[in-house]
Amino acid sequence: MNISVLGTGTAGRTLAAALAGHGHHLVMGTRDPEGTLARTAPDQHATFAGWQTDHKTIRLTGYADAAADGEIIVNATNGLHSVAALTAAGAGNLAGKILIDIANPLDFSHGMPPSLDPVNTDSLAEQIQRTFPEAKVVKTLNTMSAAVMVNPRSVAGGEHSVFVSGNDARAKATVAALLEVLGHRDVIDLGDITTARGTEMLLPVWLQLWGSLGTMAFNFKIAR
Amino acid sequence: MNISVLGTGTAGRTLAAALAGHGHHLVMGTRDPEGTLARTAPDQHATFAGWQTDHKTIRLTGYADAAADGEIIVNATNGLHSVAALTAAGAGNLAGKILIDIANPLDFSHGMPPSLDPVNTDSLAEQIQRTFPEAKVVKTLNTMSAAVMVNPRSVAGGEHSVFVSGNDARAKATVAALLEVLGHRDVIDLGDITTARGTEMLLPVWLQLWGSLGTMAFNFKIAR
Repeated sequence: MNISVLGTGTAGRTLAAALAGHGHHLVMGTRDPEGTLARTAPDQHATFAGWQTDHKTIRLTGYADAAADGEIIVNATNGLHSVAALTAAGAGNLAGKILIDIANPLDFSHGMPPSLDPVNTDSLAEQIQRTFPEAKVVKTLNTMSAAVMVNPRSVAGGEHSVFVSGNDARAKATVAALLEVLGHRDVIDLGDITTARGTEMLLPVWLQLWGSLGTMAFNFKIAR
Repeated sequence: MNISVLGTGTAGRTLAAALAGHGHHLVMGTRDPEGTLARTAPDQHATFAGWQTDHKTIRLTGYADAAADGEIIVNATNGLHSVAALTAAGAGNLAGKILIDIANPLDFSHGMPPSLDPVNTDSLAEQIQRTFPEAKVVKTLNTMSAAVMVNPRSVAGGEHSVFVSGNDARAKATVAALLEVLGHRDVIDLGDITTARGTEMLLPVWLQLWGSLGTMAFNFKIAR
């Protein structure tokens, strides 16, 4: 399947590499591909160019080109800028497609701990669905680290949960199948896209747990 | 130990009965004890008076009298009115004592789903600690049903987690010991009282899970 990941941060890279490893054709999209590839850092492996030497089949291109290529689009951009990034990707390139939203609208502008914006009576996923009504938005994977997203067995043998929220039942079923390929065993359908509010609101306790446990190698399990 | 539970709803009754069963001396506090005892309902067992016939050792009195009696105070009042209830209980009756806050500030005034108020950059637990600086506020148990609070083994053999947030390490240790007596095996100390924000923000997903799973017999486990 042609999957396009928008956003070149840790989550985007990790998910793109894992999905390519499962046989999908991956393209990554970013605002300024030349700028992203030219970026340097003391640790060259931390740059996108360094990462790409290990993932030569994954092409980097602009948001619109990437979105046009994908049958499924993954939003792994910074949550505070996701609507702008998706607007650059183009509503027409998203229409009718599954848009997997894994971003969280964390606002670090007022220092630590970050707050969420929007929150409580709205969510990023709902904003995206409202802005792109013809896309089939499915919120998922936003409640765990990138490493756990793609290798759930690395935590407690995979005995934990992942949530899906969205208005389109078939889109959610396709996403659930992708999650199961990655190793997720307990996919919980919370309901329509408004239920993404609840999963985005897990982020504050996730961040506190990271601090208290001293590791990101954990996940929420719904014991029952 | 003398423990006073403020609030006569399901959570307050369930916790009071369980703590009495573990040998503690329990008093319950409410705004208008005579009115609460006089209340009638088609199912007489659902009334406080009906409940009390099975729990004769638990005296019902006013907020201030109950708070004066307790060495530990439990806030099980409606979260939107907790600060008013605790003000009626009297700052002097809370000073120096452990104040276990199990309430959530759920606002149903705008319909379903309820929102939280305060949320995100503040929490009920922080409001209470700011209003009663001499109380040792410990937020806990607000992330599960009343039945699971007092009988954690009823869900997944007790293999799930409970959080504590608070500024006083000794108060948190005392509360953790009480939780362990109730059967909680995984007590996670998130940090100071500001970390209660994260646990109160679990409520939206908790409410959605109740809907999706069709039962309150579940709990969050932090798999790691």
